[in-house]
Amino acid sequence: MLTVNAIAATSATDPLVRTTVERRDLGPRDVLIEIRYAGICHSDIHTVRGEWGDVPYPLTVGHEIVGTVAEVGAEVSRHATGDRVGVGCMVNSCRTCDNCKAGQEQYCLDGNTGTYASVDRDGTVTQGGYTTHIVVDEDFVLRVPEAIPYEKAAPLLCAGITTYSPLSHWKAGPGTKVAVVGMGGLGHMAVKIAVAMGAEVTVLSQTLGKKDDGLAFGAAHYYATGDPATFEVLKNSFDLIINTVSAPIEMASYLRLLRLDGTLVSVGAPPEPLAVPVFALFGNRRSFAGSSIGGIAETQEMLDFCAERDIAPEVEVIDAEAVNEAYERVMKSDVRYRFVIDVDTLR
Amino acid sequence: MLTVNAIAATSATDPLVRTTVERRDLGPRDVLIEIRYAGICHSDIHTVRGEWGDVPYPLTVGHEIVGTVAEVGAEVSRHATGDRVGVGCMVNSCRTCDNCKAGQEQYCLDGNTGTYASVDRDGTVTQGGYTTHIVVDEDFVLRVPEAIPYEKAAPLLCAGITTYSPLSHWKAGPGTKVAVVGMGGLGHMAVKIAVAMGAEVTVLSQTLGKKDDGLAFGAAHYYATGDPATFEVLKNSFDLIINTVSAPIEMASYLRLLRLDGTLVSVGAPPEPLAVPVFALFGNRRSFAGSSIGGIAETQEMLDFCAERDIAPEVEVIDAEAVNEAYERVMKSDVRYRFVIDVDTLR
Repeated sequence: MLTVNAIAATSATDPLVRTTVERRDLGPRDVLIEIRYAGICHSDIHTVRGEWGDVPYPLTVGHEIVGTVAEVGAEVSRHATGDRVGVGCMVNSCRTCDNCKAGQEQYCLDGNTGTYASVDRDGTVTQGGYTTHIVVDEDFVLRVPEAIPYEKAAPLLCAGITTYSPLSHWKAGPGTKVAVVGMGGLGHMAVKIAVAMGAEVTVLSQTLGKKDDGLAFGAAHYYATGDPATFEVLKNSFDLIINTVSAPIEMASYLRLLRLDGTLVSVGAPPEPLAVPVFALFGNRRSFAGSSIGGIAETQEMLDFCAERDIAPEVEVIDAEAVNEAYERVMKSDVRYRFVIDVDTLR
Repeated sequence: MLTVNAIAATSATDPLVRTTVERRDLGPRDVLIEIRYAGICHSDIHTVRGEWGDVPYPLTVGHEIVGTVAEVGAEVSRHATGDRVGVGCMVNSCRTCDNCKAGQEQYCLDGNTGTYASVDRDGTVTQGGYTTHIVVDEDFVLRVPEAIPYEKAAPLLCAGITTYSPLSHWKAGPGTKVAVVGMGGLGHMAVKIAVAMGAEVTVLSQTLGKKDDGLAFGAAHYYATGDPATFEVLKNSFDLIINTVSAPIEMASYLRLLRLDGTLVSVGAPPEPLAVPVFALFGNRRSFAGSSIGGIAETQEMLDFCAERDIAPEVEVIDAEAVNEAYERVMKSDVRYRFVIDVDTLR
């Protein structure tokens, strides 16, 4: 057992504090990772504040993890000491259900094992990446290409794959029109990836405050959702809308932006149900779908795609002690576009 | 101008009454149809009772219309006097938008012209099929194959195409598992068509009252939605759920019945929005979609498919004077499975 420095939440309302977590002894198929950077995802905040259900405090969150392999178990074949690696939102799954066998471990019918706040196969509660080390089964460890700097690779493990997967599944590409709702951590990655896939991309953001950034990331158009005219001008326009906003949106207005057989995919989840007027789905045979991260093979594909196409998130690197302040800024959308904790400041 | 016998609604609350409607003089591309039978659709009732918006009373409804061509305009090439023909839910569209050009006139971006309660291209309000004659542009008149008796052909024009279209679009067929929610006019057609397409079909009905019928129509399984165990047993099962119920359903329970990449398609529309928990869409990457009737070419394809596969609705033929009583019975789900008005009783 390894006891390592970490930052943890102790309640839904108290600030995160410095503490330690324990990492299991290396099993034959385990990889010990010395973490270098950990991204801050909005999900981390929802979770520690109890907005998504009961929390097993104290809890260390963080599921955008990159670092170096420090040690491998006897049977590990995919990774070696010194490798640049990453871990995303899950660290295990049943491996035997139809979805796992189809390489869609994120939809494991037995429930995948989340990187934090899940009960692991050994009965312990998983602890996430705001810490110096983690032990993970080799099948859930990704290779981080040399072309991607460590600190920029971290957000790809959640924000990257969460947007890449639906863009790929719903076939964003040349000739398709894609809208991205929200220009935060996920949204800015959705723009960059959809542009790289060849789609014509429109950003729908509350204001025009980040318009210059959006266009610089390759978006062709940028509209403010605070302006009702936006929803008139863009009616029946899009093949695909990626909704990255985890607050409720006025569904009818957004659905009406879809053209024939278009799909609105939510990747952010408000805790309360969304009110969906069925008549808005009837027009243009529209669909409203959900998508959750991506499979392990697909996550590797995304990392390789980003390396090859030179795509990376915009990050603001912070010291571990700044994490509570960073949470407040995320809540105010005051980040361009992802906070990443320099885990060396935890050692 | 032709003045013909009809049944009309004069208010949201009064019974339908006998009256007359006027039919325009035959234009060069018009077809005059002597109506033989007209089906009673739940939409007719929603409409006359004002549940779907303002109604231009007096209004004659009915959009499941079959009869014989009595006369054709000078330029009509698709139909000839004496032909067996049908008219469904729309009688015109813009013909120029992307959706019309794609043969999806039902999704005309300018709005298709409904068979009743729409403003026609000549500025008059369209009047539906509870009447002895109708004049329709030849492009919106379908050929009714000899193999289908008139009275059984009528419900295919709405109940048939409304279920055939999503079953075809979402690829029901050998190896797919399809659930049909509701065993009414639409539901029983969905079962027959999905079975003919080769899918394994499960009926989800409030009770087991129509189980024998469902199995006789070819369903492999029949479950009561009144029994909570149904939603446990069938979790993660279906590729496609066709929801024919126009009352609100508890969406989370139904969505959880979908397997990976499954879609729940609503073809019935409650006036109020449905509450959709986004987390239920995340699991299995599920979709919630809407589908509205079908295009003209697809409607012809459906009629030919039904003729070839010997599929027809179960109907109860009634006299025109029984229409108000029939409405009450539809509201109580007391019909197996579609009322069809014998329009000869209106002459």
